[in-house]
Amino acid sequence: MKKHIFNAGPCKLPASTLENTAKAILELNNSGQSILEVSHRSKDFQAVMDETIELFRETFNIPADYHVLFVGGGASTQFATVPMNFLKKKAAYINTGVWSEKAIKEAKLFGEVEIIASSEDKKHTYFPKGIKIPTDVDYVHITTNNTIYGTEIFEDLNSPVPVIADMSSDIMSRPVDVTKYALIYGGAQKNLGPAGVTFVIIKDEFLKTAVADRPIPTMFKYSVHAKSGSMNNTPPCVNIFALKETLAWVKSVGGVKKMEKNAIERADMLYAEIDRNKLFSAPVEKGSRSRMNIVFVLNEKYAPLQDEFIKFASERNIIGIKGHRDVGGFRASAYNASLIEDVKALVEAMKEFEKLKA
Amino acid sequence: MKKHIFNAGPCKLPASTLENTAKAILELNNSGQSILEVSHRSKDFQAVMDETIELFRETFNIPADYHVLFVGGGASTQFATVPMNFLKKKAAYINTGVWSEKAIKEAKLFGEVEIIASSEDKKHTYFPKGIKIPTDVDYVHITTNNTIYGTEIFEDLNSPVPVIADMSSDIMSRPVDVTKYALIYGGAQKNLGPAGVTFVIIKDEFLKTAVADRPIPTMFKYSVHAKSGSMNNTPPCVNIFALKETLAWVKSVGGVKKMEKNAIERADMLYAEIDRNKLFSAPVEKGSRSRMNIVFVLNEKYAPLQDEFIKFASERNIIGIKGHRDVGGFRASAYNASLIEDVKALVEAMKEFEKLKA
Repeated sequence: MKKHIFNAGPCKLPASTLENTAKAILELNNSGQSILEVSHRSKDFQAVMDETIELFRETFNIPADYHVLFVGGGASTQFATVPMNFLKKKAAYINTGVWSEKAIKEAKLFGEVEIIASSEDKKHTYFPKGIKIPTDVDYVHITTNNTIYGTEIFEDLNSPVPVIADMSSDIMSRPVDVTKYALIYGGAQKNLGPAGVTFVIIKDEFLKTAVADRPIPTMFKYSVHAKSGSMNNTPPCVNIFALKETLAWVKSVGGVKKMEKNAIERADMLYAEIDRNKLFSAPVEKGSRSRMNIVFVLNEKYAPLQDEFIKFASERNIIGIKGHRDVGGFRASAYNASLIEDVKALVEAMKEFEKLKA
Repeated sequence: MKKHIFNAGPCKLPASTLENTAKAILELNNSGQSILEVSHRSKDFQAVMDETIELFRETFNIPADYHVLFVGGGASTQFATVPMNFLKKKAAYINTGVWSEKAIKEAKLFGEVEIIASSEDKKHTYFPKGIKIPTDVDYVHITTNNTIYGTEIFEDLNSPVPVIADMSSDIMSRPVDVTKYALIYGGAQKNLGPAGVTFVIIKDEFLKTAVADRPIPTMFKYSVHAKSGSMNNTPPCVNIFALKETLAWVKSVGGVKKMEKNAIERADMLYAEIDRNKLFSAPVEKGSRSRMNIVFVLNEKYAPLQDEFIKFASERNIIGIKGHRDVGGFRASAYNASLIEDVKALVEAMKEFEKLKA
């Protein structure tokens, strides 16, 4: 029995990703080997890597003067390697919650950090608007979607300095103008694929000119991964394979624009119900509401029903809607592979619950 | 058609690892979710992680005062994080070839490195014996098996200082006395599982007392991974699952002792044929010959037959025997999942080739 999965990540993936990855684990094409066994230096795996990068470039419309890298360690490792490589003196960070704060903490190990905008004053229930970016910083860092608070920015910043973005949780959910970024990174385990692989999109010019003058270990140098085609050491082969399958699925169903259309449809339907339903409300300001992570709470009068609604939903095969411990309430994460049927099932459960309780 | 796989890593894995991982990708137990989809914070995945650690502890007979960690980035990342965490002033390194040299290069970024033994004088065709370890170093680092040159040490060092070992390519192929090590690390992609997960066995006392006084990014602190049970951020879930399956297979067929017996049997058979065959010889000294990576070359007279033998073998479904570019010749990597039948097929091919050419 397949469930309506609203996990915040790892999360629901396309059926074809699961099926084709399972198949490749039994045998990769007709290689006589599993994707778990094949040498990363073999033609068979090089073909997987090449196809992944080609699909990635096509999907995100990445110009030729950018590299696409796949590394390990998750976005959390990028929080450190970004400033290790690029923070010479001072960097600007936008604080939109836990993940930004983690990135800021690591950056402070390498230089000065200026918080140029923050949503801390209202418990991160909005995405700062009209952000003014100083010109005397090495780069500005932004977390474009905040899984915990459910806020998101839907535009690409205009910036006088290089923009570095953590897009872990909204990559591939809307068209992005890559040329406005020096570096985009993220863990794959939301819209792209399984946990265990991290993507980096990096501008060659930035890599060539912006690296700080400090000793950087080999594996933390973006230049090393760029030069070696992400093959300086053994890459996470099966994770990259599954990512490729997700890219292929996105292409087959209409690309990023279709993903955006679906995301808007799912989010609109769910927020409409939250706003309508007597039991629930959304803490996030309109205009900042994430399409990926839809956060909602029980209104004060109904607050004691928290656990009961989670149980009520799970009896309807709806899972993963418990809110993050820092926020409470509920969070329905509707990433690219989520179906409108999943959202309908949740909306239906909310309506039924309202009938019983309101 | 399954092949006789002699890849240096990623490499042949047990059939049950492939089958059960493929199954879990379609659905993890009866969770209604794929191992690629399940939240790492869920009970379903926590059970996978707990079982993996338990099996790991049991397999390697790990005392209670050690932590077992799973991280990303491969052993190459450990080359840097080891000295970042533990090199205060000076560390001793044993140079047995390319992988040791890579570890040494990273260590030099953090402090003084004393090479206390090296096989460089004879192109790394032997493993240094009677190594004298100084007492004025923070730790001694050893690479226990050298995939490129095919040398291996079969004993645990007696050392007056903490021993740190890269066991990427021979872990689980012989019983190891873990109590003689402060830290053991390695990429999983040889005996343990697929690429994309790195194991660390670390002594609590060492972690508590030996950390250098320098700013260390969160993700590079062993203490962070120890405290969080390798869940500080999303771990490489499917890679850990496949590793667990390999541990379960090893247990089911007789544990590490059985792996050692099989490794000796395979290696003895292949080295015997190399020593007997008129065409081939082994460059590595007896006593240092790796059971995991069996390196051999064509004798001078037959050297031009290099490519022909690789083709000859591949026609018999034998793959992955081309030697590393730094050494040339051939390398048959016979890790834990290799069958004596695989080795027999190679020996048979060598005999046939001898009949044709000698």
